[in-house]
Amino acid sequence: MSTPRGHLVRSEIAEQPAVAEGILTTAAGAGSEVTRLAGLIRDAAPRAVLLTARGTSDHAALYAKYLVEVGLGLPCGLTSTSTLTVYGATPDLTGVLWISISQSGGSPDLVESTAAARRAGAITLAVTNNPASPLAAAAEHHLDVHAGPELAVAATKSYTAQLLTLWLLVTSWRGGDLAPAGAVPGWLARAVDAGDVVEVATRYRFVDRLVLTARGYSYPTAREAALKLMETSYLSAQAFSAADLMHGPLAMVDADRPVIAVVPQGRGGEAMAPVLAALAERGADVCAVAPGGVAPDATVRLDLPAGMPEDLAPVVQIVPLQRLALEMAVARGLDPDAPRGLRKVTETR
Amino acid sequence: MSTPRGHLVRSEIAEQPAVAEGILTTAAGAGSEVTRLAGLIRDAAPRAVLLTARGTSDHAALYAKYLVEVGLGLPCGLTSTSTLTVYGATPDLTGVLWISISQSGGSPDLVESTAAARRAGAITLAVTNNPASPLAAAAEHHLDVHAGPELAVAATKSYTAQLLTLWLLVTSWRGGDLAPAGAVPGWLARAVDAGDVVEVATRYRFVDRLVLTARGYSYPTAREAALKLMETSYLSAQAFSAADLMHGPLAMVDADRPVIAVVPQGRGGEAMAPVLAALAERGADVCAVAPGGVAPDATVRLDLPAGMPEDLAPVVQIVPLQRLALEMAVARGLDPDAPRGLRKVTETR
Repeated sequence: MSTPRGHLVRSEIAEQPAVAEGILTTAAGAGSEVTRLAGLIRDAAPRAVLLTARGTSDHAALYAKYLVEVGLGLPCGLTSTSTLTVYGATPDLTGVLWISISQSGGSPDLVESTAAARRAGAITLAVTNNPASPLAAAAEHHLDVHAGPELAVAATKSYTAQLLTLWLLVTSWRGGDLAPAGAVPGWLARAVDAGDVVEVATRYRFVDRLVLTARGYSYPTAREAALKLMETSYLSAQAFSAADLMHGPLAMVDADRPVIAVVPQGRGGEAMAPVLAALAERGADVCAVAPGGVAPDATVRLDLPAGMPEDLAPVVQIVPLQRLALEMAVARGLDPDAPRGLRKVTETR
Repeated sequence: MSTPRGHLVRSEIAEQPAVAEGILTTAAGAGSEVTRLAGLIRDAAPRAVLLTARGTSDHAALYAKYLVEVGLGLPCGLTSTSTLTVYGATPDLTGVLWISISQSGGSPDLVESTAAARRAGAITLAVTNNPASPLAAAAEHHLDVHAGPELAVAATKSYTAQLLTLWLLVTSWRGGDLAPAGAVPGWLARAVDAGDVVEVATRYRFVDRLVLTARGYSYPTAREAALKLMETSYLSAQAFSAADLMHGPLAMVDADRPVIAVVPQGRGGEAMAPVLAALAERGADVCAVAPGGVAPDATVRLDLPAGMPEDLAPVVQIVPLQRLALEMAVARGLDPDAPRGLRKVTETR
């Protein structure tokens, strides 16, 4: 009997509620790694935060950037790795918190730049799915995302594990309430089982160009969904923050290029209103990834649980989009478990 | 007699050597605005640098980020404007240099976030083409890019003026030699007159999806070229740093999707070698934007002057790509002076 295409991605998507449950169990309690590292960072009182990552993990880094900027009010940036690895910059990073995020912990440029940041005086923290990785060894501190072995090339459960772990870390660091995360496994379970993905996948069967948009905390969801669609279905999927979309790229949106809009409850979702209006004016075909009742004028919808706090919603929002990428790839006769030309650990310098 | 389509963009592209000459004349001498502001910033010794911008100006901000990270070794980030304007974060930005970049100086989110950064204690500097703009008023300091009135919706001369001005500012701040910029007007004049653009525009007449890639200082060039192609020809043009391209999006590149690779002389260009090899292996149709002799295996080329220092090259590299966007739009019967659905000042919040 042959194995159905995409069975690895499919089973790893389905594992996400259990992975989240495991993370919450591990992170609970005063003695957990999350609590210990959050306390250590709080005591160090960093002057700035730098995040470094590639691919899917870069979207987790972008999510963490919103958490740090909004929740902690610290200057925060995504590093341009090449400044250290290609141009050999020798910055003074004393008092800077440097967080490297990677599923495998194996990409040489992350290892090299993290080692350089540590030499430059930064407090270095590697967030990976592999405590035995070179990146975990290069950083002073390590935080395991506990996603379990991820076999599909397209990352799914390691991404939501990164997001939840980073939320716990930053929320604990700023002395916030960790309790809202307790609902995440249930929300994930509903997103894994929701029945509306196949309809949208069918609608997009012959689409080759697609735009994704969101704002604030949910913008990383649009970016990660675009990457999933590019990796598995070879689409030209482009993600824009809703504000950036208005500054130029809107010109290319027309009735033949569907737009996926991620619209959470909360301020970021409310800030999408003028963008949704501009898209409607252009006759764009819009798919809303949103709780029921939000963005009611969209052409089609991928439903999300209602009542998720906006800063936690991205942990769940990506699930219908992971499933959409999977179904679109399978419908096109492609194998999302093994995209052409990619390996699980990408070696860039 | 009717005015030919794209005459505004065409004439503003052609003005770039003169604009650069004007900037250099204004910036020369100990009493210039650039020198004064650079000294002021040097004395303030900021602990971190935050850059904020949208659209084309965001690519100038990304360029400045490389200049700051490599040349000054300071933690540097592109801000997520929504953290201040949508989520109302109240950070402590004491000792942080906040640089807002905008052609018009009119976008409300930039004005609002810059005012918030100033209240939060940041040293605020607006870099605009309009000293009478709300953004110039919101910031404590202002630096004029002296591009002259820009009438086409697609920004061209204001972009190279921003890049050159930011190069002069950062180089002066770090005590570097401003002399290499003296060659910029001549390089721009050669790029404005180079004869190879029409051939590439013809080759891409029916292309609807295109990938651009570069690394380091030249990565903003790829991003800005993608925006120009989206704005004027409504292409799905996607830019990736060459390292990020290897982490997933490479899967969607095949012989039917051309790739434009910006390959300067220097370390960033050298770091492109494995990416160019991976593209060749996939049979990709590659256009090299590079000086003669660099990336010799590309299918087609847009030639650049040889001998440009890598950190200054982006001021010139964008010119053949601006011209390509113009010619592609005209060949498609579109009007690059007035892209559908866009206005010169985009009002996002």
